[in-house]
Amino acid sequence: MTIHPVIMCGGAGTRLWPVSNQACPKQFHSLVSDKSVFQETVLRFAGADGFHAEPVIVSNAAYAGLIADQLAAIGVTPAAILLEPEGRNTAAVAAVAARYLAAAFPDGLGLLVPSDHFIGRPDVFLGAIRAAAPVAAGGYITTFGIAPSRPDTGFGYIQSGAPLSGPVARVAAFKEKPDAATAAAYLATGAYSWNAGIFLFSPAAMLAELAAHAPAILATSAAALAAARIDGACVHLDPVAFAAVPSTSIDYAVMEHTALAAVLAPVDCAWSDIGTWSMVGEVSSRENTPAPVLINSENCLVHAADGQLVALVGVEGLVVVADGNRILVTARDRTQDVGAVVKALKDRGLKDFL
Amino acid sequence: MTIHPVIMCGGAGTRLWPVSNQACPKQFHSLVSDKSVFQETVLRFAGADGFHAEPVIVSNAAYAGLIADQLAAIGVTPAAILLEPEGRNTAAVAAVAARYLAAAFPDGLGLLVPSDHFIGRPDVFLGAIRAAAPVAAGGYITTFGIAPSRPDTGFGYIQSGAPLSGPVARVAAFKEKPDAATAAAYLATGAYSWNAGIFLFSPAAMLAELAAHAPAILATSAAALAAARIDGACVHLDPVAFAAVPSTSIDYAVMEHTALAAVLAPVDCAWSDIGTWSMVGEVSSRENTPAPVLINSENCLVHAADGQLVALVGVEGLVVVADGNRILVTARDRTQDVGAVVKALKDRGLKDFL
Repeated sequence: MTIHPVIMCGGAGTRLWPVSNQACPKQFHSLVSDKSVFQETVLRFAGADGFHAEPVIVSNAAYAGLIADQLAAIGVTPAAILLEPEGRNTAAVAAVAARYLAAAFPDGLGLLVPSDHFIGRPDVFLGAIRAAAPVAAGGYITTFGIAPSRPDTGFGYIQSGAPLSGPVARVAAFKEKPDAATAAAYLATGAYSWNAGIFLFSPAAMLAELAAHAPAILATSAAALAAARIDGACVHLDPVAFAAVPSTSIDYAVMEHTALAAVLAPVDCAWSDIGTWSMVGEVSSRENTPAPVLINSENCLVHAADGQLVALVGVEGLVVVADGNRILVTARDRTQDVGAVVKALKDRGLKDFL
Repeated sequence: MTIHPVIMCGGAGTRLWPVSNQACPKQFHSLVSDKSVFQETVLRFAGADGFHAEPVIVSNAAYAGLIADQLAAIGVTPAAILLEPEGRNTAAVAAVAARYLAAAFPDGLGLLVPSDHFIGRPDVFLGAIRAAAPVAAGGYITTFGIAPSRPDTGFGYIQSGAPLSGPVARVAAFKEKPDAATAAAYLATGAYSWNAGIFLFSPAAMLAELAAHAPAILATSAAALAAARIDGACVHLDPVAFAAVPSTSIDYAVMEHTALAAVLAPVDCAWSDIGTWSMVGEVSSRENTPAPVLINSENCLVHAADGQLVALVGVEGLVVVADGNRILVTARDRTQDVGAVVKALKDRGLKDFL
């Protein structure tokens, strides 16, 4: 049963300023290698056993050009690029993708996956997905729980329940981002894993569960797809119809209600959501051109645009990011606060520096 | 007796990289205010009682355009711009300036002064020079000792001797840069001051002392001036003749030998040679445009080119300098090591980033 990657790349965060911004968010930048994070995600599946060679891309219409260019640069042809006029969270993405797949590849499975994550052991990751395919084909919407490496309070957690088949279990519960004590308790039990927002499903099962638990989302999303304007691989969802789609996550809309929630965990695939510069620094193998000059400096991450030279003298534990006229210097253990810079720039009306 | 400022602006250091470089050294940059350090130096004397309105400038021919532009921008007309084909240290400068002044203003005094220093209390500084004028007119080559504020090992020291007249004393000794213990001892006695390289003299006296103690320097310098090519205010010293001038400092060539060395000290004029970014940070009132974004950050100096935005998050005690494609991040207490960056860039052949 062929697995169809459905790669979500419509989001835009603020904690990777100045590189990531609304005009060209995180996933389209060469953050951790010489390819963009989106390209790395696409290539993870390209040519892999069991995966369809042509991925489905779901994004905001604003990024259509970026997506086409970046796919062309790595020689990947998409099955379709589903373009939203505006963001409506992941339930809408799941609904549109399931409707699209049900029509185009009714016998396949869909793999809803974010485009902006790093995976250090792709073989482990792909193996886990293949291992879950029979359960997903049997109607379960299967999530993948990342093996937690620390009591992180920044992720939702999945509690594994009774074994279902092979490495797949029922989901006992989805847990919101915990406080520190709760996160430590989760880590100690071994029954909790990080919710990475990855879902494997048969289109028919996803549509049935949406119909049961989120009928308004399904109806409005289906209408937006039915009225879409097709332009080659690009499927422009109808703006009027799409504006009526309620905005909520697939977790809230379906996963927390369905009896068909399954989880394969722990997946120990060296996963990172590279959500902060500190996390980028932990996994990046990207090289700056020219290489930075380091004088008596240690444990620093430098991320400079091509042609920008950064010199460090007598400093330690810093992240330095240079992107043309925007320069960030932050302590490695404070990179979660970088969003405050974006807020300050907005407050001061300095749009050119966002 | 009119005092003629002779402003020396031919030097180029490496510790203020990336702003200061060979093509446009320190003194021509807006380091501590919205004017360049050279302009601030010129304006310090412009219109001051007792000083000639038209300064003499001595520099390298490479900076003739910069000098003309920066003087025009502040509305100052130079008496002359004496241009060296190459640097030959301060004895040559003193010799050329003394010869020039002896011909052009035989009744005046010359004040040899570096162009790249900060002076926070210009009235104190100018008052000290005026107070020393009678002694200088009497034939003494008078230096000005800066009141030391710390046991600095980076400066030469002047030991004051027997009183001569008013606030001026004989020089007991010139001292090389001391070690830390010696510097502390100097500070404790109160008889030592920093040698800032500032000299007040009558042209005839300077020429006589050069003739007595450095006749080769005087002869070759005089020949280079005699054969100079005049172009408006610019006096291009003859390259062939000037190449023969021995390169040494006025301290070594004359001051350590003459019986006519005098010193006015301590001059408590909030002087700084702004030789490192840390020192720049101590005295700068320059504002960045746009202003930096500071999030939980303290005690940092940001010096960014116009239009470059620097954001600091959770850092302390840093200097961040952004000059287009060259970015420096250093600890405030390590800025003396910035020259190592320039060396590394030269070693790597990265001329475009010098």
